[in-house]
Amino acid sequence: MPDLKSQISNLKSNYAIIVAGGSGSRMQSALPKQFIELCGEPVLMHTIRAFIESDAAPKIILALNSSYHELWAELCTEHNFTIPHTVIAGGETRFHSVKNALDTITAEDAIVAVHDAVRPLTSKQTIDESYRVAATSGTAITAVKSRDSIRQMNGELTTCLDREGIYLVQTPQTFKASLLKKAYEQPYTGLFTDDASVAEKTGVHITLIEGSHSNIKITFPEDITIAEALLNKKAISGS
Amino acid sequence: MPDLKSQISNLKSNYAIIVAGGSGSRMQSALPKQFIELCGEPVLMHTIRAFIESDAAPKIILALNSSYHELWAELCTEHNFTIPHTVIAGGETRFHSVKNALDTITAEDAIVAVHDAVRPLTSKQTIDESYRVAATSGTAITAVKSRDSIRQMNGELTTCLDREGIYLVQTPQTFKASLLKKAYEQPYTGLFTDDASVAEKTGVHITLIEGSHSNIKITFPEDITIAEALLNKKAISGS
Repeated sequence: MPDLKSQISNLKSNYAIIVAGGSGSRMQSALPKQFIELCGEPVLMHTIRAFIESDAAPKIILALNSSYHELWAELCTEHNFTIPHTVIAGGETRFHSVKNALDTITAEDAIVAVHDAVRPLTSKQTIDESYRVAATSGTAITAVKSRDSIRQMNGELTTCLDREGIYLVQTPQTFKASLLKKAYEQPYTGLFTDDASVAEKTGVHITLIEGSHSNIKITFPEDITIAEALLNKKAISGS
Repeated sequence: MPDLKSQISNLKSNYAIIVAGGSGSRMQSALPKQFIELCGEPVLMHTIRAFIESDAAPKIILALNSSYHELWAELCTEHNFTIPHTVIAGGETRFHSVKNALDTITAEDAIVAVHDAVRPLTSKQTIDESYRVAATSGTAITAVKSRDSIRQMNGELTTCLDREGIYLVQTPQTFKASLLKKAYEQPYTGLFTDDASVAEKTGVHITLIEGSHSNIKITFPEDITIAEALLNKKAISGS
């Protein structure tokens, strides 16, 4: 087994941490969404390919619960999936998974995108812009404006928020590695819902970039139907 | 031309106001989304059919800018669309369109759903629950929890909101007519983004009911692709 840490540290610049959910304990109940087939291959393969085919062409670090490493290796063989990527053990929560992955990146000047394994439809344009903006601003958080009105629960009541100022946050969330590593030195709290919230806690200014409503997160069964339709359309239009 | 107002006032209980966007001035640029074909017929026909096929089986009032009445009549003929519905003139804004439609409802005990013309995928379950809940609570606002993190713009900065308490508001938004009519007596302000916000301003308690992430609003070109995939799946599964 080669020393992955030193391998990665010899490479420069762009990294993508792909964070896959699902703990071993859930394995009995349902297959985590990243393994579900989408147009003939697991969601996660589409996700990794999107990054590899971008101009940023980052090194891929997949944070995956250890109990799924064997399954993933089998799926890669079965689907003849040969895109180089490093698999590391996911942690107890998303925070711990990202932290484990960051620990393997030692390049001082690295730019790191953190991305949900279950967002397979991210465009090349979005990925490249996130690396470009993060390289200058330090952060690039993909987000879209809400197309619906928004209500916020206050006790038993809800109140309407001004939709104009509300953004739905997606991934990739891309950072200068030095900044993100420092943020991930903080102790974990349940308030960290994404990487932007971890970074923000250290006083970092969050820069938003425009995502797409097509950059969906596979969450519900109908999302596979939606994702397949969007992928098929993309294939036809060649975009 | 029969007196539509008196026709409607002789009928009882359930109404659905379908609000179609698009002003005449925009006609040169693009066909409003409610007229785009979805699985072979305009979006709006799917929307109306969803209501008619619910157990609530409401009387349909379509608020449509006058400049589109002729086009709509032609489309109905072309597609042999014979579901009974009343077409009234839309107003300058959504608020004014709903107000115009409400003016035609005189039944004291009516329950009124207000619905976007461009949400063709609303389930029978959601529609029926909205009438059922509004009949007892006074209001039933369809909403889903956000699956993404949420950021709110504050000046030049954004801050992360607690996602747990955030709801994305959809339609139908269903009300006891007496309550909604009173709310629509208020003068218009740009802060009224939906019917719930109009009603809330009069001190009405807003009750949320659970919608579905499939209850999409046709906003972007890719939404037609998504809606067709979901409709085809529904047809296959028979649900």
